[in-house]
Amino acid sequence: MTGDLVLRPVGRVESSLATREEAPRQGDEGAPDAWVVFDESVRAALHDLAPGDEVILISWFDRSDRDVLTVHPRGDLSRPATGVFSTRSPDRPNPLGLHRVTILATDGLRLHVDHLEAIDGTPIVDVKPVLGDITER
Amino acid sequence: MTGDLVLRPVGRVESSLATREEAPRQGDEGAPDAWVVFDESVRAALHDLAPGDEVILISWFDRSDRDVLTVHPRGDLSRPATGVFSTRSPDRPNPLGLHRVTILATDGLRLHVDHLEAIDGTPIVDVKPVLGDITER
Repeated sequence: MTGDLVLRPVGRVESSLATREEAPRQGDEGAPDAWVVFDESVRAALHDLAPGDEVILISWFDRSDRDVLTVHPRGDLSRPATGVFSTRSPDRPNPLGLHRVTILATDGLRLHVDHLEAIDGTPIVDVKPVLGDITER
Repeated sequence: MTGDLVLRPVGRVESSLATREEAPRQGDEGAPDAWVVFDESVRAALHDLAPGDEVILISWFDRSDRDVLTVHPRGDLSRPATGVFSTRSPDRPNPLGLHRVTILATDGLRLHVDHLEAIDGTPIVDVKPVLGDITER
């Protein structure tokens, strides 16, 4: 396949989670609230986000192994090795993470969000609204 | 922010949609079925995907304008300019697309999926399962 595609981090996670071992496997499995701190260069892109909004944060798992193609789901060796495209493993060819969160508060370039399983320092590369019904778009 | 992050395309879209103008704004707004053709290097990662699976394809909108920070939603100039992180605009700092589709058929390195609004040739960078209830993970 031709051409590498270059992502630029637009923000970083500030979280009490310091290591992968501490992080739950999914946000709804006990992950703590966290902050996302954005870069000045994307201030205008953030401007309309407000408390109560449900968004999808896209992260880059910068401590992942990109050569992994199969994993035992949830690290359980009794489960068969499964192609990573059928799992949410952070180890995968392009280590992107999807995190559905609710915005709790905004403060300039900072967003406070609930239940984020990404660890401290994780780059954030995009934010998207959760889409409602077609009639509300 | 430090360090660029490099995505490697793992597949490409084969679609009857040739231009952005032809593409609906979201997959559930009349987008056609399409194929995704994967690279040999990720065969093992694909292996467990099967017809009926609901997945999220992550694409790279390679014809986007990355300098755009605000847009008029749905191109409607009567709506106020809105930060792109509150929209699904393909024009955004990191032009990633999220596409929730159902797999209709698999054929080696090819997946046939329903309702994909990405246009022909669009790079695919990741595939993730739609997560069910915690008890099913």
